[in-house]
Amino acid sequence: MSGEHEKGGRLSLLTVNRLSLYLRRLEALEAEGIETVSSAQLAQHLGITDAQVRKDLAALGHLGYPGVGYYPRELIEVLRDTLGLQGEWPVVLIGAGNLARALLKYRGFGQRGFHIVCVFDADPAKIGEKIDQWTVLAMDRLAEQVAAYRAQLAIVAVPASAAQAVADALVACGIKGILNFAPTVLRVPAGVHVVAVDLAMQLEQLAYLVRTQTGTDSPPD
Amino acid sequence: MSGEHEKGGRLSLLTVNRLSLYLRRLEALEAEGIETVSSAQLAQHLGITDAQVRKDLAALGHLGYPGVGYYPRELIEVLRDTLGLQGEWPVVLIGAGNLARALLKYRGFGQRGFHIVCVFDADPAKIGEKIDQWTVLAMDRLAEQVAAYRAQLAIVAVPASAAQAVADALVACGIKGILNFAPTVLRVPAGVHVVAVDLAMQLEQLAYLVRTQTGTDSPPD
Repeated sequence: MSGEHEKGGRLSLLTVNRLSLYLRRLEALEAEGIETVSSAQLAQHLGITDAQVRKDLAALGHLGYPGVGYYPRELIEVLRDTLGLQGEWPVVLIGAGNLARALLKYRGFGQRGFHIVCVFDADPAKIGEKIDQWTVLAMDRLAEQVAAYRAQLAIVAVPASAAQAVADALVACGIKGILNFAPTVLRVPAGVHVVAVDLAMQLEQLAYLVRTQTGTDSPPD
Repeated sequence: MSGEHEKGGRLSLLTVNRLSLYLRRLEALEAEGIETVSSAQLAQHLGITDAQVRKDLAALGHLGYPGVGYYPRELIEVLRDTLGLQGEWPVVLIGAGNLARALLKYRGFGQRGFHIVCVFDADPAKIGEKIDQWTVLAMDRLAEQVAAYRAQLAIVAVPASAAQAVADALVACGIKGILNFAPTVLRVPAGVHVVAVDLAMQLEQLAYLVRTQTGTDSPPD
Protein backbone atom coordinates (compact mmCIF):
# COMPACT_ATOMS: atom_id res chain seq x y z
CA MET A 1 0.00 0.00 0.00
CA SER A 2 1.60 3.28 -1.06
CA GLY A 3 0.24 6.78 -1.04
CA GLU A 4 -1.44 8.25 1.96
CA HIS A 5 -1.22 5.42 4.45
CA GLU A 6 0.73 5.92 7.61
CA LYS A 7 3.08 3.20 8.67
CA GLY A 8 1.50 0.52 10.84
CA GLY A 9 -1.54 0.11 8.61
CA ARG A 10 -3.52 2.97 10.08
CA LEU A 11 -5.10 5.16 7.44
CA SER A 12 -4.09 8.80 7.21
CA LEU A 13 -6.59 11.54 7.95
CA LEU A 14 -6.87 12.36 4.25
CA THR A 15 -7.71 8.75 3.45
CA VAL A 16 -10.29 8.67 6.22
CA ASN A 17 -11.68 11.88 4.76
CA ARG A 18 -12.16 10.20 1.38
CA LEU A 19 -13.81 7.16 3.01
CA SER A 20 -16.24 9.52 4.75
CA LEU A 21 -17.00 11.18 1.42
CA TYR A 22 -17.63 7.80 -0.26
CA LEU A 23 -19.94 6.89 2.59
CA ARG A 24 -21.95 10.11 2.25
CA ARG A 25 -22.27 9.61 -1.49
CA LEU A 26 -23.27 5.94 -1.19
CA GLU A 27 -25.89 6.77 1.43
CA ALA A 28 -27.35 9.36 -0.94
CA LEU A 29 -27.39 6.81 -3.79
CA GLU A 30 -29.00 4.19 -1.59
CA ALA A 31 -31.65 6.70 -0.52
CA GLU A 32 -32.39 7.28 -4.22
CA GLY A 33 -32.80 3.54 -4.73
CA ILE A 34 -29.66 3.15 -6.87
CA GLU A 35 -28.52 -0.45 -6.67
CA THR A 36 -25.06 -0.37 -8.22
CA VAL A 37 -22.39 2.28 -8.70
CA SER A 38 -19.09 2.30 -10.59
CA SER A 39 -15.75 3.61 -9.34
CA ALA A 40 -15.92 6.10 -12.22
CA GLN A 41 -19.21 7.50 -10.92
CA LEU A 42 -17.85 7.83 -7.39
CA ALA A 43 -14.65 9.37 -8.73
CA GLN A 44 -16.47 11.91 -10.84
CA HIS A 45 -18.64 12.97 -7.92
CA LEU A 46 -15.60 13.59 -5.72
CA GLY A 47 -13.36 15.04 -8.43
CA ILE A 48 -10.65 12.40 -8.00
CA THR A 49 -9.36 9.66 -10.26
CA ASP A 50 -10.94 6.30 -10.80
CA ALA A 51 -7.66 4.70 -9.79
CA GLN A 52 -7.74 6.42 -6.40
CA VAL A 53 -11.29 5.19 -5.73
CA ARG A 54 -10.44 1.63 -6.73
CA LYS A 55 -7.31 1.65 -4.59
CA ASP A 56 -9.09 3.04 -1.54
CA LEU A 57 -11.91 0.52 -1.81
CA ALA A 58 -9.65 -2.43 -2.65
CA ALA A 59 -7.91 -1.81 0.68
CA LEU A 60 -11.23 -2.61 2.40
CA GLY A 61 -11.67 -6.06 0.82
CA HIS A 62 -13.04 -7.63 -2.37
CA LEU A 63 -15.99 -5.33 -2.86
CA GLY A 64 -16.06 -4.55 -6.58
CA TYR A 65 -17.80 -6.86 -9.06
CA PRO A 66 -16.56 -6.91 -12.68
CA GLY A 67 -19.13 -5.51 -15.07
CA VAL A 68 -21.34 -4.43 -12.16
CA GLY A 69 -19.37 -2.07 -9.91
CA TYR A 70 -20.14 -1.79 -6.24
CA TYR A 71 -23.31 -2.42 -4.30
CA PRO A 72 -23.97 0.70 -2.22
CA ARG A 73 -25.57 -1.22 0.63
CA GLU A 74 -22.63 -3.61 1.00
CA LEU A 75 -20.06 -0.84 0.73
CA ILE A 76 -21.92 1.33 3.27
CA GLU A 77 -21.70 -1.45 5.85
CA VAL A 78 -17.99 -1.98 5.27
CA LEU A 79 -17.25 1.74 5.37
CA ARG A 80 -19.24 2.25 8.57
CA ASP A 81 -17.39 -0.63 10.12
CA THR A 82 -13.98 0.65 8.98
CA LEU A 83 -14.77 4.13 10.29
CA GLY A 84 -16.06 2.76 13.59
CA LEU A 85 -19.53 4.23 13.18
CA GLN A 86 -21.51 1.23 14.33
CA GLY A 87 -21.63 2.37 17.95
CA GLU A 88 -22.48 5.36 20.09
CA TRP A 89 -19.98 7.97 21.21
CA PRO A 90 -20.57 10.26 24.18
CA VAL A 91 -19.09 13.72 23.55
CA VAL A 92 -18.53 16.61 25.95
CA LEU A 93 -18.94 20.16 24.67
CA ILE A 94 -16.87 23.00 26.11
CA GLY A 95 -18.34 26.43 25.59
CA ALA A 96 -21.92 27.66 25.75
CA GLY A 97 -21.78 30.58 23.31
CA ASN A 98 -23.49 30.99 19.94
CA LEU A 99 -21.46 28.31 18.23
CA ALA A 100 -22.07 25.82 21.03
CA ARG A 101 -25.80 26.51 20.89
CA ALA A 102 -25.77 25.92 17.15
CA LEU A 103 -23.90 22.63 17.70
CA LEU A 104 -26.43 21.50 20.32
CA LYS A 105 -29.18 21.94 17.74
CA TYR A 106 -27.20 20.26 14.97
CA ARG A 107 -29.03 17.05 14.15
CA GLY A 108 -26.23 15.52 12.11
CA PHE A 109 -24.28 14.41 15.17
CA GLY A 110 -26.97 12.17 16.64
CA GLN A 111 -27.64 10.56 13.26
CA ARG A 112 -24.00 9.45 13.27
CA GLY A 113 -23.96 8.11 16.82
CA PHE A 114 -22.39 11.16 18.46
CA HIS A 115 -24.25 12.39 21.52
CA ILE A 116 -23.38 15.55 23.39
CA VAL A 117 -23.77 14.43 26.99
CA CYS A 118 -22.70 17.59 28.87
CA VAL A 119 -21.98 21.26 28.21
CA PHE A 120 -19.40 23.22 30.22
CA ASP A 121 -18.52 26.89 30.41
CA ALA A 122 -16.12 28.94 32.50
CA ASP A 123 -18.45 31.96 32.63
CA PRO A 124 -20.30 32.05 35.99
CA ALA A 125 -23.17 33.87 34.24
CA LYS A 126 -23.78 30.85 32.01
CA ILE A 127 -23.38 28.08 34.60
CA GLY A 128 -26.74 26.59 35.52
CA GLU A 129 -28.42 27.94 32.40
CA LYS A 130 -30.72 25.49 30.60
CA ILE A 131 -30.24 25.03 26.84
CA ASP A 132 -32.87 22.58 25.63
CA GLN A 133 -32.22 19.41 27.65
CA TRP A 134 -28.75 20.47 28.77
CA THR A 135 -27.73 22.45 31.86
CA VAL A 136 -24.45 24.34 31.54
CA LEU A 137 -21.95 22.97 34.06
CA ALA A 138 -18.91 24.59 35.67
CA MET A 139 -15.50 23.47 34.44
CA ASP A 140 -14.68 21.92 37.82
CA ARG A 141 -17.29 19.24 37.07
CA LEU A 142 -15.44 18.17 33.92
CA ALA A 143 -13.36 15.29 35.31
CA GLU A 144 -16.32 13.74 37.11
CA GLN A 145 -18.57 13.89 34.05
CA VAL A 146 -15.96 12.62 31.60
CA ALA A 147 -15.42 9.64 33.89
CA ALA A 148 -19.15 9.06 34.44
CA TYR A 149 -19.89 8.96 30.70
CA ARG A 150 -16.55 7.33 29.82
CA ALA A 151 -16.25 10.08 27.19
CA GLN A 152 -13.23 10.02 24.88
CA LEU A 153 -14.27 12.87 22.58
CA ALA A 154 -14.70 16.58 23.22
CA ILE A 155 -15.74 19.58 21.15
CA VAL A 156 -13.99 22.86 21.95
CA ALA A 157 -16.14 25.88 21.07
CA VAL A 158 -14.53 28.62 23.16
CA PRO A 159 -12.62 31.76 22.14
CA ALA A 160 -9.07 31.24 20.90
CA SER A 161 -7.64 32.82 24.04
CA ALA A 162 -9.25 30.17 26.27
CA ALA A 163 -8.77 27.14 24.03
CA GLN A 164 -5.35 25.88 25.16
CA ALA A 165 -6.31 25.91 28.85
CA VAL A 166 -9.48 23.99 27.97
CA ALA A 167 -7.48 21.47 25.94
CA ASP A 168 -5.09 20.97 28.87
CA ALA A 169 -8.03 20.31 31.18
CA LEU A 170 -9.54 17.83 28.71
CA VAL A 171 -6.26 15.96 28.35
CA ALA A 172 -5.91 15.82 32.13
CA CYS A 173 -9.34 14.13 32.32
CA GLY A 174 -8.36 11.48 29.80
CA ILE A 175 -10.06 12.85 26.66
CA LYS A 176 -8.42 11.31 23.57
CA GLY A 177 -9.90 13.32 20.71
CA ILE A 178 -10.71 17.01 20.40
CA LEU A 179 -12.75 18.66 17.64
CA ASN A 180 -11.43 22.21 17.79
CA PHE A 181 -13.45 25.16 16.50
CA ALA A 182 -11.23 27.80 18.12
CA PRO A 183 -9.07 29.50 15.47
CA THR A 184 -5.81 28.53 17.17
CA VAL A 185 -3.47 25.54 17.12
CA LEU A 186 -3.84 23.32 20.20
CA ARG A 187 -0.80 21.57 21.64
CA VAL A 188 -1.61 18.14 23.03
CA PRO A 189 0.55 15.19 24.06
CA ALA A 190 1.12 12.12 21.87
CA GLY A 191 -1.89 9.83 21.96
CA VAL A 192 -4.39 12.69 21.90
CA HIS A 193 -5.82 13.75 18.53
CA VAL A 194 -7.04 17.13 17.42
CA VAL A 195 -9.13 17.73 14.32
CA ALA A 196 -9.39 21.44 13.60
CA VAL A 197 -12.51 22.82 11.97
CA ASP A 198 -11.04 25.59 9.89
CA LEU A 199 -14.01 27.39 8.40
CA ALA A 200 -11.88 29.89 6.51
CA MET A 201 -10.11 27.01 4.77
CA GLN A 202 -13.41 25.76 3.44
CA LEU A 203 -14.22 29.23 2.10
CA GLU A 204 -10.77 29.30 0.49
CA GLN A 205 -11.50 26.07 -1.32
CA LEU A 206 -14.82 27.43 -2.52
CA ALA A 207 -13.17 30.65 -3.70
CA TYR A 208 -10.62 28.60 -5.62
CA LEU A 209 -13.36 26.68 -7.42
CA VAL A 210 -15.26 29.85 -8.27
CA ARG A 211 -12.17 31.69 -9.44
CA THR A 212 -10.89 28.92 -11.69
CA GLN A 213 -14.35 28.19 -13.06
CA THR A 214 -15.14 31.73 -14.06
CA GLY A 215 -11.75 32.33 -15.60
CA THR A 216 -11.06 35.48 -13.60
CA ASP A 217 -7.72 35.46 -11.86
CA SER A 218 -8.63 37.61 -8.91
CA PRO A 219 -11.61 38.42 -6.71
CA PRO A 220 -13.99 41.03 -8.09
CA ASP A 221 -12.62 43.99 -6.13
CA MET B 1 -0.09 14.84 -13.94
CA SER B 2 -1.91 11.85 -12.51
CA GLY B 3 -3.75 11.41 -9.26
CA GLU B 4 -6.31 13.87 -8.09
CA HIS B 5 -6.23 16.43 -10.85
CA GLU B 6 -9.35 17.00 -12.86
CA LYS B 7 -9.03 17.22 -16.57
CA GLY B 8 -8.33 20.68 -17.91
CA GLY B 9 -5.58 21.45 -15.40
CA ARG B 10 -7.86 22.55 -12.59
CA LEU B 11 -6.96 21.02 -9.27
CA SER B 12 -9.49 18.77 -7.54
CA LEU B 13 -11.03 19.81 -4.24
CA LEU B 14 -8.91 17.26 -2.38
CA THR B 15 -5.74 18.69 -3.91
CA VAL B 16 -6.84 22.20 -3.00
CA ASN B 17 -7.50 20.91 0.50
CA ARG B 18 -3.91 19.69 0.77
CA LEU B 19 -2.57 23.01 -0.54
CA SER B 20 -4.59 24.80 2.16
CA LEU B 21 -3.12 22.47 4.77
CA TYR B 22 0.43 23.11 3.53
CA LEU B 23 -0.26 26.83 3.69
CA ARG B 24 -1.51 26.64 7.28
CA ARG B 25 1.52 24.62 8.33
CA LEU B 26 3.99 26.90 6.56
CA GLU B 27 2.42 29.97 8.12
CA ALA B 28 2.83 28.37 11.55
CA LEU B 29 6.48 27.54 10.78
CA GLU B 30 7.14 31.06 9.54
CA ALA B 31 5.57 32.50 12.70
CA GLU B 32 7.98 30.33 14.71
CA GLY B 33 10.91 31.76 12.72
CA ILE B 34 11.68 28.47 10.93
CA GLU B 35 13.55 29.31 7.73
CA THR B 36 13.53 26.00 5.83
CA VAL B 37 11.35 22.91 5.83
CA SER B 38 11.64 19.54 4.10
CA SER B 39 8.93 17.67 2.23
CA ALA B 40 9.36 14.93 4.86
CA GLN B 41 8.52 17.35 7.67
CA LEU B 42 5.44 18.62 5.85
CA ALA B 43 4.42 15.05 5.01
CA GLN B 44 4.79 13.87 8.59
CA HIS B 45 2.71 16.74 9.89
CA LEU B 46 -0.15 15.95 7.50
CA GLY B 47 0.15 12.17 7.71
CA ILE B 48 0.75 11.72 3.97
CA THR B 49 3.72 10.52 1.98
CA ASP B 50 6.77 12.55 1.06
CA ALA B 51 6.10 11.70 -2.56
CA GLN B 52 2.64 13.26 -2.43
CA VAL B 53 4.03 16.49 -0.95
CA ARG B 54 6.80 16.70 -3.54
CA LYS B 55 4.35 16.05 -6.36
CA ASP B 56 1.86 18.63 -5.14
CA LEU B 57 4.53 21.29 -4.72
CA ALA B 58 6.35 20.45 -7.96
CA ALA B 59 3.10 21.23 -9.78
CA LEU B 60 3.43 24.82 -8.52
CA GLY B 61 6.91 25.44 -9.95
CA HIS B 62 10.56 24.89 -9.05
CA LEU B 63 10.30 25.56 -5.35
CA GLY B 64 12.41 22.90 -3.66
CA TYR B 65 16.17 23.33 -3.21
CA PRO B 66 18.36 20.19 -3.02
CA GLY B 67 19.87 19.74 0.42
CA VAL B 68 17.81 22.62 1.78
CA GLY B 69 14.14 21.88 1.25
CA TYR B 70 11.60 24.66 0.88
CA TYR B 71 11.63 28.23 2.09
CA PRO B 72 8.33 28.78 3.94
CA ARG B 73 8.08 32.43 2.96
CA GLU B 74 8.49 31.70 -0.75
CA LEU B 75 6.11 28.78 -0.67
CA ILE B 76 3.49 30.76 1.26
CA GLU B 77 3.43 33.40 -1.48
CA VAL B 78 3.06 30.82 -4.23
CA LEU B 79 0.34 28.92 -2.36
CA ARG B 80 -1.63 32.10 -1.62
CA ASP B 81 -1.37 33.04 -5.25
CA THR B 82 -2.44 29.58 -6.46
CA LEU B 83 -5.37 29.55 -4.05
CA GLY B 84 -6.39 33.09 -5.04
CA LEU B 85 -6.01 34.49 -1.54
CA GLN B 86 -4.26 37.70 -2.47
CA GLY B 87 -7.49 39.66 -2.78
CA GLU B 88 -10.67 40.45 -0.90
CA TRP B 89 -13.91 38.52 -1.28
CA PRO B 90 -17.29 39.93 -0.30
CA VAL B 91 -19.55 37.20 1.12
CA VAL B 92 -23.27 37.27 1.87
CA LEU B 93 -24.57 35.31 4.85
CA ILE B 94 -28.05 33.78 4.81
CA GLY B 95 -29.47 33.05 8.23
CA ALA B 96 -29.31 35.00 11.47
CA GLY B 97 -29.54 32.21 14.02
CA ASN B 98 -26.96 30.95 16.51
CA LEU B 99 -24.64 29.56 13.87
CA ALA B 100 -24.80 32.76 11.82
CA ARG B 101 -24.01 34.83 14.91
CA ALA B 102 -21.02 32.62 15.66
CA LEU B 103 -19.84 33.04 12.06
CA LEU B 104 -20.16 36.83 12.27
CA LYS B 105 -17.82 36.77 15.26
CA TYR B 106 -15.39 34.33 13.64
CA ARG B 107 -12.18 36.26 13.08
CA GLY B 108 -10.60 33.71 10.77
CA PHE B 109 -12.61 34.87 7.75
CA GLY B 110 -11.36 38.46 7.72
CA GLN B 111 -7.75 37.32 8.16
CA ARG B 112 -8.13 35.40 4.90
CA GLY B 113 -9.74 38.21 2.92
CA PHE B 114 -13.35 37.05 3.31
CA HIS B 115 -15.70 39.77 4.46
CA ILE B 116 -19.33 39.18 5.33
CA VAL B 117 -20.99 42.20 3.79
CA CYS B 118 -24.68 41.49 4.52
CA VAL B 119 -26.83 39.17 6.61
CA PHE B 120 -30.27 38.02 5.47
CA ASP B 121 -33.07 36.13 7.17
CA ALA B 122 -36.58 35.13 6.19
CA ASP B 123 -37.93 35.53 9.73
CA PRO B 124 -39.78 38.89 10.06
CA ALA B 125 -38.89 38.92 13.77
CA LYS B 126 -35.18 39.04 12.92
CA ILE B 127 -35.29 41.55 10.05
CA GLY B 128 -33.95 44.93 11.14
CA GLU B 129 -32.15 43.46 14.15
CA LYS B 130 -28.61 44.75 14.71
CA ILE B 131 -25.84 42.16 15.22
CA ASP B 132 -22.61 44.04 15.85
CA GLN B 133 -22.15 46.21 12.72
CA TRP B 134 -24.67 44.25 10.63
CA THR B 135 -28.41 44.82 10.27
CA VAL B 136 -30.40 41.72 9.31
CA LEU B 137 -32.02 42.29 5.89
CA ALA B 138 -35.10 40.71 4.33
CA MET B 139 -34.55 38.12 1.61
CA ASP B 140 -36.14 40.41 -0.99
CA ARG B 141 -33.08 42.68 -0.69
CA LEU B 142 -30.75 39.85 -1.70
CA ALA B 143 -30.45 40.52 -5.46
CA GLU B 144 -29.81 44.23 -4.95
CA GLN B 145 -27.10 43.64 -2.34
CA VAL B 146 -25.36 40.84 -4.23
CA ALA B 147 -25.17 43.17 -7.24
CA ALA B 148 -24.04 46.16 -5.19
CA TYR B 149 -21.16 44.25 -3.60
CA ARG B 150 -20.50 42.13 -6.71
CA ALA B 151 -20.55 39.15 -4.33
CA GLN B 152 -19.83 35.71 -5.78
CA LEU B 153 -19.78 33.77 -2.49
CA ALA B 154 -22.52 33.01 0.01
CA ILE B 155 -22.72 31.17 3.31
CA VAL B 156 -25.94 29.25 3.99
CA ALA B 157 -26.63 28.91 7.71
CA VAL B 158 -30.36 28.16 7.73
CA PRO B 159 -32.28 25.01 8.74
CA ALA B 160 -32.14 22.10 6.31
CA SER B 161 -35.80 22.59 5.38
CA ALA B 162 -35.13 26.13 4.08
CA ALA B 163 -31.74 25.55 2.48
CA GLN B 164 -32.75 24.56 -1.06
CA ALA B 165 -35.03 27.57 -1.51
CA VAL B 166 -32.21 29.80 -0.27
CA ALA B 167 -29.77 28.17 -2.68
CA ASP B 168 -32.20 28.72 -5.56
CA ALA B 169 -32.48 32.40 -4.65
CA LEU B 170 -28.69 32.74 -4.45
CA VAL B 171 -28.22 31.10 -7.84
CA ALA B 172 -30.86 33.40 -9.34
CA CYS B 173 -28.85 36.40 -8.09
CA GLY B 174 -25.66 35.17 -9.73
CA ILE B 175 -23.87 33.70 -6.70
CA LYS B 176 -21.22 31.21 -7.90
CA GLY B 177 -20.09 29.54 -4.67
CA ILE B 178 -22.04 28.41 -1.61
CA LEU B 179 -20.58 27.29 1.71
CA ASN B 180 -23.40 25.14 3.05
CA PHE B 181 -23.81 24.47 6.76
CA ALA B 182 -27.32 23.03 6.43
CA PRO B 183 -27.24 19.24 6.83
CA THR B 184 -28.78 18.62 3.43
CA VAL B 185 -27.51 18.23 -0.14
CA LEU B 186 -28.10 21.34 -2.26
CA ARG B 187 -28.87 20.98 -5.95
CA VAL B 188 -27.35 23.76 -8.05
CA PRO B 189 -26.80 24.18 -11.78
CA ALA B 190 -23.44 23.59 -13.49
CA GLY B 191 -21.10 26.50 -12.91
CA VAL B 192 -22.17 26.98 -9.28
CA HIS B 193 -20.09 25.29 -6.58
CA VAL B 194 -21.16 24.04 -3.20
CA VAL B 195 -18.77 23.15 -0.40
CA ALA B 196 -20.60 21.40 2.41
CA VAL B 197 -19.41 21.82 5.99
CA ASP B 198 -20.20 18.43 7.40
CA LEU B 199 -19.45 18.69 11.10
CA ALA B 200 -20.40 15.09 11.82
CA MET B 201 -17.85 13.95 9.24
CA GLN B 202 -15.11 15.73 11.12
CA LEU B 203 -16.20 14.02 14.35
CA GLU B 204 -16.16 10.71 12.50
CA GLN B 205 -12.59 11.26 11.45
CA LEU B 206 -11.63 12.11 15.01
CA ALA B 207 -13.38 9.01 16.32
CA TYR B 208 -11.49 6.90 13.80
CA LEU B 209 -8.16 8.27 15.00
CA VAL B 210 -9.06 7.72 18.65
CA ARG B 211 -10.36 4.23 18.06
CA THR B 212 -7.37 3.02 16.06
CA GLN B 213 -4.89 4.67 18.40
CA THR B 214 -6.26 3.17 21.57
CA GLY B 215 -6.62 -0.28 20.09
CA THR B 216 -10.27 -0.65 21.06
CA ASP B 217 -12.48 -1.71 18.20
CA SER B 218 -15.66 -0.05 19.33
CA PRO B 219 -16.82 3.00 21.25
CA PRO B 220 -16.82 2.65 25.04
CA ASP B 221 -20.52 1.84 25.39
